[in-house]
Amino acid sequence: MKKILVLGAGLSTPTLISYLLKNSDVNGWQVTVGDISKEIAEQRINGHTNGKAIQFDVNDEEQRNSEIGHADIVISMLPARMHYLVAGTCLKFKKNMVTASYVSKEIKKLDTEARELGVLFLNEVGLDPGIDHMSAMQIIDSIKAEGGELVSFKSSTGGLVAPKFDNNPWNYKFTWNPRNVVLAGQGGAQLIKRGMYKYIPYHKLFTRLLTIDIDGYGEFEVYPNRDSLSYRTAYGIDNIPSMFRGTIRRPGFSKTWNTLVQLGVTDDSFVIENSENLTYREFTNSFLRYDKVRTVEDKFAEYVGIDSDSFSMYKIRWLGLFSNEKIGLKKATPAQILQKKLEEKWALEPEDKDMIVMQHGFEYKLNDKYYQITSSMVVEGKDNTDTAMAITVGLPVAIGCKLILEGKITGTGIKIPTSEDIYKPILEELANYKIVFKEEKKEIDEPNGK
Amino acid sequence: MKKILVLGAGLSTPTLISYLLKNSDVNGWQVTVGDISKEIAEQRINGHTNGKAIQFDVNDEEQRNSEIGHADIVISMLPARMHYLVAGTCLKFKKNMVTASYVSKEIKKLDTEARELGVLFLNEVGLDPGIDHMSAMQIIDSIKAEGGELVSFKSSTGGLVAPKFDNNPWNYKFTWNPRNVVLAGQGGAQLIKRGMYKYIPYHKLFTRLLTIDIDGYGEFEVYPNRDSLSYRTAYGIDNIPSMFRGTIRRPGFSKTWNTLVQLGVTDDSFVIENSENLTYREFTNSFLRYDKVRTVEDKFAEYVGIDSDSFSMYKIRWLGLFSNEKIGLKKATPAQILQKKLEEKWALEPEDKDMIVMQHGFEYKLNDKYYQITSSMVVEGKDNTDTAMAITVGLPVAIGCKLILEGKITGTGIKIPTSEDIYKPILEELANYKIVFKEEKKEIDEPNGK
Repeated sequence: MKKILVLGAGLSTPTLISYLLKNSDVNGWQVTVGDISKEIAEQRINGHTNGKAIQFDVNDEEQRNSEIGHADIVISMLPARMHYLVAGTCLKFKKNMVTASYVSKEIKKLDTEARELGVLFLNEVGLDPGIDHMSAMQIIDSIKAEGGELVSFKSSTGGLVAPKFDNNPWNYKFTWNPRNVVLAGQGGAQLIKRGMYKYIPYHKLFTRLLTIDIDGYGEFEVYPNRDSLSYRTAYGIDNIPSMFRGTIRRPGFSKTWNTLVQLGVTDDSFVIENSENLTYREFTNSFLRYDKVRTVEDKFAEYVGIDSDSFSMYKIRWLGLFSNEKIGLKKATPAQILQKKLEEKWALEPEDKDMIVMQHGFEYKLNDKYYQITSSMVVEGKDNTDTAMAITVGLPVAIGCKLILEGKITGTGIKIPTSEDIYKPILEELANYKIVFKEEKKEIDEPNGK
Repeated sequence: MKKILVLGAGLSTPTLISYLLKNSDVNGWQVTVGDISKEIAEQRINGHTNGKAIQFDVNDEEQRNSEIGHADIVISMLPARMHYLVAGTCLKFKKNMVTASYVSKEIKKLDTEARELGVLFLNEVGLDPGIDHMSAMQIIDSIKAEGGELVSFKSSTGGLVAPKFDNNPWNYKFTWNPRNVVLAGQGGAQLIKRGMYKYIPYHKLFTRLLTIDIDGYGEFEVYPNRDSLSYRTAYGIDNIPSMFRGTIRRPGFSKTWNTLVQLGVTDDSFVIENSENLTYREFTNSFLRYDKVRTVEDKFAEYVGIDSDSFSMYKIRWLGLFSNEKIGLKKATPAQILQKKLEEKWALEPEDKDMIVMQHGFEYKLNDKYYQITSSMVVEGKDNTDTAMAITVGLPVAIGCKLILEGKITGTGIKIPTSEDIYKPILEELANYKIVFKEEKKEIDEPNGK
């Protein structure tokens, strides 16, 4: 029996854990799931004979030593900031670890030690980061193998509500951490276009959009992500003249979201002392000039630069930001107040299903001709447990874990799935679960992105 | 002989030090000026027989003990963050201290100990903070004494170039720390209007202007300062329904400055790796979308929302932000690059004189009638040593120091000049130096600011 220890049993883990349990008999796996809430761990195990749920506190060193010491491999699905505690104990007992999180500075520092001890930490093997790396690298490597020269790479991902359940005027519901959505983009964005770095401040981010199309799903818009530049080294394309990473939304989302950015209500840096007793209308008005005559609606429309009869105005009214309802949150930041209202209005209903959309765009030169490859993936959730997010984050982690146990993924140190030995077998098995990219290739007159 | 120790001999100290030296014979003062540069300290003393220049390092504990231990009173004109070191030594030797800086959290904590030891630390007794507190409190106290109810208070200050030398299209030159000017407002602003808190994000700050007039000097514009709210308690007007603090510029400054804020070039949070080899035109273009056809100028005007033939556009061209000149700064932030260009273009010439403008606006109710008082001060610099800034910062500090030595300002603990026993004698003596407010009072139909 091989013992797999899964730490953390949150919303991204149901598909991961059920994969491990389904494949446990044939592989001889014992799956222990530890969470700060034993009840949630038990839900995930759901009585499976090869599964065991435990209450797990990552800050309890003794428990860390005992559980990790007895495991054959560790999957950490804990909040990213906790991985380094798990990683330290993994090194102590020479255990391999898999995560779906970005390699933090703390984890990166462990590379030499991990190599010396012969330990493998496979990170960034979820969705984004994860499937994005693997699917992009597969195409980048094939272009290079063909002798092509990559001149532009765009990569975008979005967590959205599936079309059938997409029934609000924003075409958006929360399928993931609402706080991250409210604060998204606050550091601005950096990218490179035709060899020139481009810098976009937060207050302009939601005006710097791309439009993409996905077969069968129609049009989407993309706003730039913070850091497009650091990926160049990770992908071995340091000298690429154009590189862009973005977040996908349905058309019109960003224009209206930008009105909230302009107003200032996404600010998380100060507390509104009297927030509990304010109405949403008063909250909105507290970002606008006093005016004896004009309505809050009129002042808002003018201040953020939209027409009073625009669809954006309707979306703001629909949210209830002009309503006389009390906020009822004590000493909250503007971002927290906005989030409260959005959580009411953008709530995913129990029967709703989510959707993950990812699209890469490549432009390359081969034998003096230019080609464009567009590679798109759409995954819809099965239900409110096996969501598209849980499927796309959990399956690559689970498959990565299996391949390490089988000795099919090898190596030591801190790795991410950008090399063929890792991404190829994972992408192959993901295809069995209909996680596939649809690729279109065509010749183009001249590159747009160079 | 009374020994006055002045620590720090920077640009705000010439008038302060020459006041102390001029009055040293009649008062029996010995003035020691310590600066990290002995040469600058010597320049300030200028051979005066009652003066002594020393090289002083605030981080040298032994020197602190020796100099402060032998002084009768200490004036700290060091950078604000260094005051707590001076304050600690002052407590040790029970010496009074005077500063022109805001009371920091560290200094505030010393209040009880200072009281117990019978030591007075008089802070915020320069221009802003300083003259603003004193002149405002004199009027607030007189309105209260009359039985009036203050319903609105606006207070604004600006450091500008004197009209005769105001010969560039921005109507602005650096008369003080350029870095602070470039980064001004980045935390946004908070104020209160008719009992409602108002919040203004940085990217809207320079659009939320007031206009003021000053007799003989014409029109100015005012943009809101970060924190108008905390002053309510300091001024004993906790329940005032309208309160505003602002920074004064000449009309049109903020509209054009806002185009730079919108572009994103005031950002100090990231480094432009290749900044050394960029031209200013490339720098500007790196905040704009790639476009095969359109000029940087056209893209800029559209992006920041101004007309291509507007005066704002002329001011940006005049700065040289579209020029092909190399920046020549290594690994600089956008704000540092902008500052470099501004320091060239907004430089005060040797023969130029600066100007300090301050205006308070009060509205109050008395016997069912409303009144408005406008109180304005303008000080022009004498030359490039006794600048308006040095005069208005230095004289109140010097006078405060004299009054403490004479026993005319008493008390213990951490004080600021908001009480009559402090502000009255200082304002009286400032009038001898033509630092006076011109007051206008009129009845109004209804308060604008309530």
